[in-house]
Amino acid sequence: MLSKQTEKALQNRSAIREIFEYGMKRGQEIGFENVFDFSLGNPATPAPKKFDETIIKLEQTMDPLKLHGYTDNAGIMEVRDAVAKNLNKRFGTDFEAKSIVMTVGAGGAINTVMKTILDPDDEVIVFAPYFSEYDNYVANFYGKLVKIAPNFPTFQPNLDELKKAINKKTKAVLINTPNNPSGIVYSEESIKGIAEVLREKQKELGQEIYLISDEPYRELLFDGAKHYFVSKYYENTFICYSFSKSLSLPGERIGYIAIPKTMADWEKVALAIKTSTRILGFVNAPALMQMAVKECIDEQSDLEYYAKNRQILLDGLTKCGFTCAKPEGAFYLFLKSPIADDVEFCEHAKKYDLMLVNGSSFGCPGYVRLAYCVATDKIERSMEKFALLAKEYGLQ
Amino acid sequence: MLSKQTEKALQNRSAIREIFEYGMKRGQEIGFENVFDFSLGNPATPAPKKFDETIIKLEQTMDPLKLHGYTDNAGIMEVRDAVAKNLNKRFGTDFEAKSIVMTVGAGGAINTVMKTILDPDDEVIVFAPYFSEYDNYVANFYGKLVKIAPNFPTFQPNLDELKKAINKKTKAVLINTPNNPSGIVYSEESIKGIAEVLREKQKELGQEIYLISDEPYRELLFDGAKHYFVSKYYENTFICYSFSKSLSLPGERIGYIAIPKTMADWEKVALAIKTSTRILGFVNAPALMQMAVKECIDEQSDLEYYAKNRQILLDGLTKCGFTCAKPEGAFYLFLKSPIADDVEFCEHAKKYDLMLVNGSSFGCPGYVRLAYCVATDKIERSMEKFALLAKEYGLQ
Repeated sequence: MLSKQTEKALQNRSAIREIFEYGMKRGQEIGFENVFDFSLGNPATPAPKKFDETIIKLEQTMDPLKLHGYTDNAGIMEVRDAVAKNLNKRFGTDFEAKSIVMTVGAGGAINTVMKTILDPDDEVIVFAPYFSEYDNYVANFYGKLVKIAPNFPTFQPNLDELKKAINKKTKAVLINTPNNPSGIVYSEESIKGIAEVLREKQKELGQEIYLISDEPYRELLFDGAKHYFVSKYYENTFICYSFSKSLSLPGERIGYIAIPKTMADWEKVALAIKTSTRILGFVNAPALMQMAVKECIDEQSDLEYYAKNRQILLDGLTKCGFTCAKPEGAFYLFLKSPIADDVEFCEHAKKYDLMLVNGSSFGCPGYVRLAYCVATDKIERSMEKFALLAKEYGLQ
Repeated sequence: MLSKQTEKALQNRSAIREIFEYGMKRGQEIGFENVFDFSLGNPATPAPKKFDETIIKLEQTMDPLKLHGYTDNAGIMEVRDAVAKNLNKRFGTDFEAKSIVMTVGAGGAINTVMKTILDPDDEVIVFAPYFSEYDNYVANFYGKLVKIAPNFPTFQPNLDELKKAINKKTKAVLINTPNNPSGIVYSEESIKGIAEVLREKQKELGQEIYLISDEPYRELLFDGAKHYFVSKYYENTFICYSFSKSLSLPGERIGYIAIPKTMADWEKVALAIKTSTRILGFVNAPALMQMAVKECIDEQSDLEYYAKNRQILLDGLTKCGFTCAKPEGAFYLFLKSPIADDVEFCEHAKKYDLMLVNGSSFGCPGYVRLAYCVATDKIERSMEKFALLAKEYGLQ
């Protein structure tokens, strides 16, 4: 007697989860040091030292009733203010405390936005490749996810297809840059292009179309790549952020939604977002974590760790004869499968105990994802395996 | 361009929130010491000392990558095991780690259950008075909340009405004992009665009907009252728990769902619950808090604090001539309004700076809720105000 959606979700086993579980099983058989698991996007570098020191300080100095008590559904005012000021300083925006709603991570943020804007059968557009949970986040509220095919080989958003996909049912476009799974960073031209299309379509259809920017990887940029702050280009933008990656806190579920003043009725929308976060049962973002990220708002984990991993992996794979999408951000590398069937390629890679995730599960067949948030020496040691794999496909 | 449900939610301002905000405004005018705010159910006694010591110890001794990393969507296995063992010891149940899914508080737990079982238009039955958020939790998934009228003056569930309310669309019955807002504890006879009705109806209709037990106040019992552990009486029971009240951690959002082995397909259901908690964007219950509640699983805040407050309030109000529902649990007292119009009575009480919440907002006109999780001296000082209020209505 489970709901139809739940039955469906149970059948759609996550490809990531499946390969990860296979890797765990294999590790027990041959030793974990011999399994090259590139499946999970779990930070591999710890939270900054100051973060843990801050928690201890808060525990030692604050009144526990206040420290662990309910906060406003939108979060603690000083925390929201610190987030707003941090964004303004870095991106030249004009957020104020009221523009920010603290959330249970980016997953909580996106669901809160969906709850706030979606009626059943409303459409949300994504550009493939895209994070597979988006299917669920939109389905939770009986919306429909509309997928725009990958734009090979740049993976920048396809604006012509975007134009064609928008209709009266379109409530939002959901983007994710730096991108999971491709590691692609959207160019300024792309962001401007999306904004232009949306502005034009808003006018044509006489309705608001929201742009939802999911940006947990915003700080993970390489080779001088730049993040173009989306709400500066388009007025009706929701910024959904998580500290999971920048502070290495994925388990603590702390993030926020930022609502720019350029959004139509922004104060009403901010109140609606606060209401939705309560109604969905999040109630408030974890209180102690709110206080801790406030104190560490200018901190970052050692992101150089990922830069180093990326370079080793990229150089090694290129040498083997593989090609991949331009990897400018996040901690993912999107490799072109040497055969059309990426699922088969991932299966075959298991022969060398290489755990890769098929691109099909991100709406992008023909590619596979490698998460390089793993120990550097493991990446180094994996190279001879990749070389053997490449050889089988006649690369190099 | 907000969703229809969101527009509706914005109109339905919370009665609790409104009176609380009035109290805040009034406090700024006349001093907070002169405002007698009985509106909010926010714990008034701090977390046990061991809890904060545990957090510091975890921070000092654990690998931050592990401490703050993603956990399994269902929670950390050792934490789930500790919860299962604690329940088994106290209630003679036979949970195992796999039976427990850690959640973002009870709000997260109930939404996760609703997501798991509800198709649009499915019905969930509640007994008034009931916690007003249930309306939203069921509406989130396009279910329908069916309300059974209050059973004056005992407020025990009305079993005849329950029988009549059940039909093919009924997916669940949602109970909350000790009850918010009434402070009533359901008797063993009531729990048994509900179980019998549900079992009979399951057979008659050939379908499962779930019993969802929302029990954040389980440990707040007075005058020797007993909590009858619901899954021991009825097989298809979801236990939804929060540590918010027993450990005074409402802001930290930590709780669990327990799924008994007597539930049909319990292992599949447990997997579905784990999937739903991921899909709804909770992902996992906050990691550090999971570890901390594990270490403090046998701890409790100073619940005697509430017992003392309750006695002072009960004695005082009775002396003034007020009557109330038998207050055996939680930290609420449900007062009979001396006039039929409870909303007007609450308005009038503001004259004495007494902030009470109307019962109508809990589906129970004619009564008002007092949350006595406030400073004891304030309760003492409020008595002369209540005496003046009583006098106006010709009581005593």
